[in-house]
Amino acid sequence: MQEKISQAVIRRLPRYYRYLSELLEEGIERISSKDLSVRMNVTASQIRQDINNFGEFGLQGYGYNVRDLYQEIKKILGLDQKHYIIVIGAGNMGRAIAKYPNFEKNGFIVTALFDVDPDLIGKAIRGIPIYDIGDLPQYMDRHRVDIAALTIPKDNAKEIVECLVNLNIGAIWNFAYVDLDLPSNIVVENVHLSDSLTQLSYNILNRRNEQG
Amino acid sequence: MQEKISQAVIRRLPRYYRYLSELLEEGIERISSKDLSVRMNVTASQIRQDINNFGEFGLQGYGYNVRDLYQEIKKILGLDQKHYIIVIGAGNMGRAIAKYPNFEKNGFIVTALFDVDPDLIGKAIRGIPIYDIGDLPQYMDRHRVDIAALTIPKDNAKEIVECLVNLNIGAIWNFAYVDLDLPSNIVVENVHLSDSLTQLSYNILNRRNEQG
Repeated sequence: MQEKISQAVIRRLPRYYRYLSELLEEGIERISSKDLSVRMNVTASQIRQDINNFGEFGLQGYGYNVRDLYQEIKKILGLDQKHYIIVIGAGNMGRAIAKYPNFEKNGFIVTALFDVDPDLIGKAIRGIPIYDIGDLPQYMDRHRVDIAALTIPKDNAKEIVECLVNLNIGAIWNFAYVDLDLPSNIVVENVHLSDSLTQLSYNILNRRNEQG
Repeated sequence: MQEKISQAVIRRLPRYYRYLSELLEEGIERISSKDLSVRMNVTASQIRQDINNFGEFGLQGYGYNVRDLYQEIKKILGLDQKHYIIVIGAGNMGRAIAKYPNFEKNGFIVTALFDVDPDLIGKAIRGIPIYDIGDLPQYMDRHRVDIAALTIPKDNAKEIVECLVNLNIGAIWNFAYVDLDLPSNIVVENVHLSDSLTQLSYNILNRRNEQG
């Protein structure tokens, strides 16, 4: 990737990637920007603009080569590499992540869970062991860990994050309902379910007002 | 709310709401845009612009009245009303939603879960019953349901969504990894964990490239 692609385009790439992988599953080898636009419910010109950002994948009158485009986006997104994930917190959210079948298929491999609950420690989820949170430093010393998924209450998040930072974690997938204060070299992606629900609440109210 | 507030501002409101509720918990009654900007890690001018959108809450040299601002944003977001939620799918994600302690505190009340698994039907999560998915029409006929949270695999999502649409559901909180094709009067909010993970992957790769 020579040129820096804008964050707005990057935000849309996972969705392109998803649609292209569905096309591949359906055995579709090429698609016009128009047909893709209908599927994805965005304009064809938006699609052409976006895809022009990372090279020549379309031919006038032919459309896009689905596999080439899929492979290129996969590479841009770093999905051609494996990512090893540990999950901090073996509650429902942590277990949901460990069990999600699609993650592994896309190279995101959960290797361990950590918890404080003695009833959980020593057990396993889908064969993935649950360790004592106290064993985290030793574990990270001996295994490659690319991403720590944080699925613990916000009150406990700060301490664990400090520990992870000291252990040189590279990326945090944060489900705790708090904005993490992290060194700039650590990548963070927040999933704030309460914010999502609040957005839903606003849109419900707004729709009622429109219809009212 | 007289004027229509831009979607960009609306997207930021849940975060304001979260920080204001934390200030209230800490017993802080007023705060300057500058202090709030430090906490929230955005510029003070952004905060002043955003908050100006919905009325007069700041006084020169005094700052914002935290409780008034909190109440106003709560009202704008529709969080002064109760929302009744059913969860379709009593797997880990469905159970995580049913157990989340903060949702109920903010007026989001999970009243029932639905599943196809005979081992789950008849059981309860935190006192919330798990029903047979076949009982959904009868349930919605007899109870107020504002939001259906969809935590089932994408292959089953389409059929269930058709059923929910026929039952006049108003809003869907979609965790299934598929874009739902819905009538425009139905509010939808997607939580696509795979897209979030993909974003993380891209940012990890990009940081590695920057660091050379």
